[in-house]
Amino acid sequence: MATRLDQAATPDALHALFRQVRSLSESLVAPLSDADATVQAMDDASPAKWHLAHTTWFLETFVLRDHVPGYALFDDRWPFLFNSYYEAEGARHARSRRGMLTRPALDEILAWRRHVDDALDAAWPGLNDAARGLIQLGCHHEQQHQELLQTDILSLFALNPIAPAIWGEPRNVPAAPPGAIRWIEGAHGIVEIGAAMDGVNFAFDCEGPRHRALLSRHALADRPVSNSEWRAFMDDGGYANAEHWLADGWAWVCANGIEAPLYWRRFDGDDWGAFALDGLHPVHPAAPVTHISYYEADAFARWAGARLPTEPEWESAAAGIDPASGHQLDRAGPVRPRAAPDGHGLRQMFGDVWEWTGSAFLPFPGFRPAPGAVGEYNGKFMSGQFVLKGASCATPRGHSRPSYRNFFYPHQRWQFTGVRLAKDL
Amino acid sequence: MATRLDQAATPDALHALFRQVRSLSESLVAPLSDADATVQAMDDASPAKWHLAHTTWFLETFVLRDHVPGYALFDDRWPFLFNSYYEAEGARHARSRRGMLTRPALDEILAWRRHVDDALDAAWPGLNDAARGLIQLGCHHEQQHQELLQTDILSLFALNPIAPAIWGEPRNVPAAPPGAIRWIEGAHGIVEIGAAMDGVNFAFDCEGPRHRALLSRHALADRPVSNSEWRAFMDDGGYANAEHWLADGWAWVCANGIEAPLYWRRFDGDDWGAFALDGLHPVHPAAPVTHISYYEADAFARWAGARLPTEPEWESAAAGIDPASGHQLDRAGPVRPRAAPDGHGLRQMFGDVWEWTGSAFLPFPGFRPAPGAVGEYNGKFMSGQFVLKGASCATPRGHSRPSYRNFFYPHQRWQFTGVRLAKDL
Amino acid sequence: MATRLDQAATPDALHALFRQVRSLSESLVAPLSDADATVQAMDDASPAKWHLAHTTWFLETFVLRDHVPGYALFDDRWPFLFNSYYEAEGARHARSRRGMLTRPALDEILAWRRHVDDALDAAWPGLNDAARGLIQLGCHHEQQHQELLQTDILSLFALNPIAPAIWGEPRNVPAAPPGAIRWIEGAHGIVEIGAAMDGVNFAFDCEGPRHRALLSRHALADRPVSNSEWRAFMDDGGYANAEHWLADGWAWVCANGIEAPLYWRRFDGDDWGAFALDGLHPVHPAAPVTHISYYEADAFARWAGARLPTEPEWESAAAGIDPASGHQLDRAGPVRPRAAPDGHGLRQMFGDVWEWTGSAFLPFPGFRPAPGAVGEYNGKFMSGQFVLKGASCATPRGHSRPSYRNFFYPHQRWQFTGVRLAKDL
Amino acid sequence: MATRLDQAATPDALHALFRQVRSLSESLVAPLSDADATVQAMDDASPAKWHLAHTTWFLETFVLRDHVPGYALFDDRWPFLFNSYYEAEGARHARSRRGMLTRPALDEILAWRRHVDDALDAAWPGLNDAARGLIQLGCHHEQQHQELLQTDILSLFALNPIAPAIWGEPRNVPAAPPGAIRWIEGAHGIVEIGAAMDGVNFAFDCEGPRHRALLSRHALADRPVSNSEWRAFMDDGGYANAEHWLADGWAWVCANGIEAPLYWRRFDGDDWGAFALDGLHPVHPAAPVTHISYYEADAFARWAGARLPTEPEWESAAAGIDPASGHQLDRAGPVRPRAAPDGHGLRQMFGDVWEWTGSAFLPFPGFRPAPGAVGEYNGKFMSGQFVLKGASCATPRGHSRPSYRNFFYPHQRWQFTGVRLAKDL
Repeated sequence: MATRLDQAATPDALHALFRQVRSLSESLVAPLSDADATVQAMDDASPAKWHLAHTTWFLETFVLRDHVPGYALFDDRWPFLFNSYYEAEGARHARSRRGMLTRPALDEILAWRRHVDDALDAAWPGLNDAARGLIQLGCHHEQQHQELLQTDILSLFALNPIAPAIWGEPRNVPAAPPGAIRWIEGAHGIVEIGAAMDGVNFAFDCEGPRHRALLSRHALADRPVSNSEWRAFMDDGGYANAEHWLADGWAWVCANGIEAPLYWRRFDGDDWGAFALDGLHPVHPAAPVTHISYYEADAFARWAGARLPTEPEWESAAAGIDPASGHQLDRAGPVRPRAAPDGHGLRQMFGDVWEWTGSAFLPFPGFRPAPGAVGEYNGKFMSGQFVLKGASCATPRGHSRPSYRNFFYPHQRWQFTGVRLAKDL
Repeated sequence: MATRLDQAATPDALHALFRQVRSLSESLVAPLSDADATVQAMDDASPAKWHLAHTTWFLETFVLRDHVPGYALFDDRWPFLFNSYYEAEGARHARSRRGMLTRPALDEILAWRRHVDDALDAAWPGLNDAARGLIQLGCHHEQQHQELLQTDILSLFALNPIAPAIWGEPRNVPAAPPGAIRWIEGAHGIVEIGAAMDGVNFAFDCEGPRHRALLSRHALADRPVSNSEWRAFMDDGGYANAEHWLADGWAWVCANGIEAPLYWRRFDGDDWGAFALDGLHPVHPAAPVTHISYYEADAFARWAGARLPTEPEWESAAAGIDPASGHQLDRAGPVRPRAAPDGHGLRQMFGDVWEWTGSAFLPFPGFRPAPGAVGEYNGKFMSGQFVLKGASCATPRGHSRPSYRNFFYPHQRWQFTGVRLAKDL
Repeated sequence: MATRLDQAATPDALHALFRQVRSLSESLVAPLSDADATVQAMDDASPAKWHLAHTTWFLETFVLRDHVPGYALFDDRWPFLFNSYYEAEGARHARSRRGMLTRPALDEILAWRRHVDDALDAAWPGLNDAARGLIQLGCHHEQQHQELLQTDILSLFALNPIAPAIWGEPRNVPAAPPGAIRWIEGAHGIVEIGAAMDGVNFAFDCEGPRHRALLSRHALADRPVSNSEWRAFMDDGGYANAEHWLADGWAWVCANGIEAPLYWRRFDGDDWGAFALDGLHPVHPAAPVTHISYYEADAFARWAGARLPTEPEWESAAAGIDPASGHQLDRAGPVRPRAAPDGHGLRQMFGDVWEWTGSAFLPFPGFRPAPGAVGEYNGKFMSGQFVLKGASCATPRGHSRPSYRNFFYPHQRWQFTGVRLAKDL
Repeated sequence: MATRLDQAATPDALHALFRQVRSLSESLVAPLSDADATVQAMDDASPAKWHLAHTTWFLETFVLRDHVPGYALFDDRWPFLFNSYYEAEGARHARSRRGMLTRPALDEILAWRRHVDDALDAAWPGLNDAARGLIQLGCHHEQQHQELLQTDILSLFALNPIAPAIWGEPRNVPAAPPGAIRWIEGAHGIVEIGAAMDGVNFAFDCEGPRHRALLSRHALADRPVSNSEWRAFMDDGGYANAEHWLADGWAWVCANGIEAPLYWRRFDGDDWGAFALDGLHPVHPAAPVTHISYYEADAFARWAGARLPTEPEWESAAAGIDPASGHQLDRAGPVRPRAAPDGHGLRQMFGDVWEWTGSAFLPFPGFRPAPGAVGEYNGKFMSGQFVLKGASCATPRGHSRPSYRNFFYPHQRWQFTGVRLAKDL
């Protein structure tokens, strides 16, 4: 269970994870100015500084405050600022005003991080399993925020008309376009999915319990939909034809004038570019399409005569695949989805883009939230959202597993979201 | 399938259904003035006159226009006004402005109804199966609108500070309070649910196909939650404690100042009354609570240490129950949920209140929308909504079956919605 | 002063006015159905039934209740429904929900009117001057609502895609286009304006006191701007060129896609029609433009190299003109602005269209609101609005005088508003 | 006229003004971090960095680009970012998104400033009168933005729950409370007001032309209303009693829960503090009340049995007063209104707080906007706003004159706005 230390987490392994996670967060903000790290692009996003602070608040509150006698808060005004949504932890600063906090400054937050890290190091030998379980949870929690930090800062820079690159490194040489989609038949009948919650491996509470699911005959595409395939949808009037769309999706298209994925822009005349962490460049035809909403993913699938995978179909298919495979976040830099590698079988299940499923984010049979404030982590979001599976180019490597349940509202698309087709057989 | 005439529908039976449905609609508006029938209480609701007109447009368009050579539209300006959401039928009057249409008047709409009914009668002998399939669909479609007509007019009258009764008949004598909830264990393992779509019995397209589902061990409450039980939730601070609520639900409670079911009002000091089709009266403690949102149903269940049933659990449990049982709409009047009858086993599965399930409204495996414009009937609403099962006191008797899938957004509560608890075993 | 009976009002004259006003209101709603009279087109407008009721509430409250011992309210629930904005009279139904009141029905309101009129007739011999002063105020108040009733019902019918005519009478034969605008020099130096408030002639409190104003040399156009002149503005890109517009006006144009006066519509290809009380017909080139906002009036004037008159300029120029002259409301029917008659000098100062002035609606020097609840009549609206002078085709004849101050927000245009140019000399 | 160099501006005097103005702007942002200078608190406010950049854009565009041959823009992407509202200068970044511009950074803007200042210095000897007239306008323009910069940054820091002080200096010792208000009779009959526009002294276009105005007998209070007087209004239920308020003001109070001036907060129990440039401190009873809207000023005056001064009354009274008198901005620091000094006659007419007048911001007779893009400076804002006269503690000394016309919407109160009472005699 989420807050119980899993058996694979030896003290040394946990400490190594802890150091690596804390360090990666800081390298992710290295190219950012104090202002870059402070501004909030939209209500859904948070400032980079806030992510650094909130993950630190999590450790200070649930580990140091609750498990280390005599620990004094670094600044007792800050928990109000950096609690995200834990009602049990009391009142907090409004989410929509996170970008108003120019003070404390980025440097002050970094100093807080060092202070908390040092206090944890000092307390480490005396921590009990409960405390170490919370540190483990805090590391996985921070990995989630590492991905959000990247997508949130991208959403901010995308609003700047001068389109600054966050990371200046050159882009990789494009790969050759992938071949046509091939269909891979999945298991049918009863399968087992979900995390075991047996304390052997870490999982968030919503991933469990392990349970049986019943699958019909079906097949999954061997790779996600590419940008060139998306262009075919656009060129066929995909965004202008109500028949492909869910009613809510069509209303969203019309109300917002949607005509392409989130960061696509007209570029050099008729062509399309995409704004990314390395600035504005031409859309790469071979790479998976990304920054699409559920509505778009669903409309594309309908147009293509297919459908989205269900969560059990996807998870069952992923069972034999190494979750560390594929293209995920290894170090700070201008990550982006890459073209499918050559090969046979299911590719890119973990890495490049999160894949929308047609399954609503609802409790698995027998689900129980973790006890205490951290029980607010997942369970209270179980309405109105859809499950995404896999991992993206911005997901820290090591943070992925088949049972992982990412979830967003169907109109949201500022994450590295993509689509893999499925069909009935 | 929805638009294929089912085998049970003999020509005579279909004609009897047609006459009965058309007649009931008109008796439902008998107590309404032209103004009552014209005003729209909110975007979600439609004027009573609009319901009368839209159901007539459905028959005129899909049967008379498409299947009766030489038929001339009664008024060629009206399809624009009374198409609901069929994109394939072209542009239409904005939903939020339905209440601005003081012309055509109620009398003109009633004349249109007679004209269309007469034309259908005249054409009847020559109609092919496709046309009769569409009439059958039109009858079931109109039955849905009969329920909406009642709940929409209730939502309008509820906005009037003088609280007029729509139907003046005296209320029934209250029943004795039901006993404590008893738990009825359901089937587990693989069950079959969904409509067969074999043309034997009518079903909407989204009810099929018949398919297998896998159930864990569980039990359902023998009856819906009562008003007195709801009062206990309220008295225990249920609406003031975030821990019971989904995050979206809590935001909805706070933004709207929710503190009781939709039509409950302070009444004679500390007590609560409820506004209903027969005006404002004290809340009946023994009757099922109604006009609650999914958020409220879910919060109550959490508070009670239980959960909502899933759709397959509910449908499986209902398989052996006569869908015509219970308290449903027989004739126009001030319908309202009634207290559970004495007895054992599952009661009130059909009738009194629609029951929120914890299942999202998504396609069954192998779902295919009906072809043509009527394929927009259900499939395009498959995001963001939850399934309700059963039937309410406002559902026309004969319109119910275990596979029936009603669906609303989790914040909506102007229907006769209630809650039955479930739990894992 | 507003609530003191003026000396010209003999008992017989007041009684004749009272009867004539009450009767005209009812003839204005003769062509309306119960539904027509109930629906509210927008927050700014009120239902016709509401106007009938509110003017009756005014008399029942301030005369019968306050001055006739023993009078019992017709229905003690209705004052809550039909108080408009008198804070001193307590809580009231929300303005934006006036259109939800399908009950009481139009017939019930008409019965209330008869009841109140009869009670006033019965009480008449014993009424003191204060009561008769309030009746006089009530009559002028009702005349204002007669104009609003016509413009509000027009705003409702204009939302109906089938464009029903409220009055079916044939339109008059168009007049010849007026000649070019001629400039009439006005008085300059110190002039006297404002109502004397000496009890000789009725005036609303905001029209006084009589006071001195200082005018520069200027001239007024001899007639209002015509539709054909407005077309020239449109054809010259008037609505597309920010330089003509106030900043708030340009924001309003852009946010609302404004491209023509309120009820103008594309008609038979390239031409424009206008929806009016007699339905949709081609725009009459010779008639004064109407249904324009202050922003439009000001932009037109700037485009034309002119400006709007100030209130003192306009009132000074009107001093010698018979306020009963021109084209005003004599009886119920499809009134509309008519082309300027032949002649010299200032024409159409009273009648056809209200004329926007460049003066804000602010207190005259020495202004004192009327005492009591009726003191809320005008003074509390003195921010953000502009003064209009004259009278329109929908203003009851007898309701006009040079000191009359009509006022609306600069974006509003559902009244019969027009524009007369002015310039410095 | 605004863009014609006035005769008092010798080349040396203009150059000294230019240097002093440019330097003061930079000292105003000295205590700000890059983040502080970047974030936008609300649509009405702009980031400090934006003020620095926009004033520089003004000089680069209208002087260097238009009058210095061969000048190359520092960065040709920046005019799009930093044009405020000049339609004639083309499309521009949306006002509500000014706070999204984390790049260019504060340091880059400061470098731009130096570049432009150096280019102006280099070009200075060859500039013609038109160019120097625009520099003069640019200096006065920048002085306006210096005041906005201070009030905008205050509005941002006020949103931070930890209430950081922008300037850490200690507050001055409070002065003794002022004595009771004394009334000073003003001139009546015809007076002259407005700026002469004769090229002798600088004025913005809207301040002219000089013209005659007619005053009734009246008196002005000798000083602005103090905080302790405002407390009496509050303690008397001033914010809870509709009778004091304009209708729009009362709606604003109710919709926004207004109960005190903008930055007042509950403090140490029952008392009130005020957040200011030096942080949160107790309200100073003797100082003029500030951060009040027109609605509040008007309600207070009504409650006090008085009214607001008109613009001509105020300007006429100020004619003999040195506009450099009083407490205005001399150097960067935590400015705030100070208590009235001892003495007789009108005090604090210039300095401490801007004073709301009861006059709408409308053109003076004979007003002509300046030609070219700079003609958009004032004239297009002439609807819906009220005139404020005088100067505040945040107004750069030297920027004041009796004819100065400041203007804001009646609900706005983030400027240092206060109120001086007036009455009829």
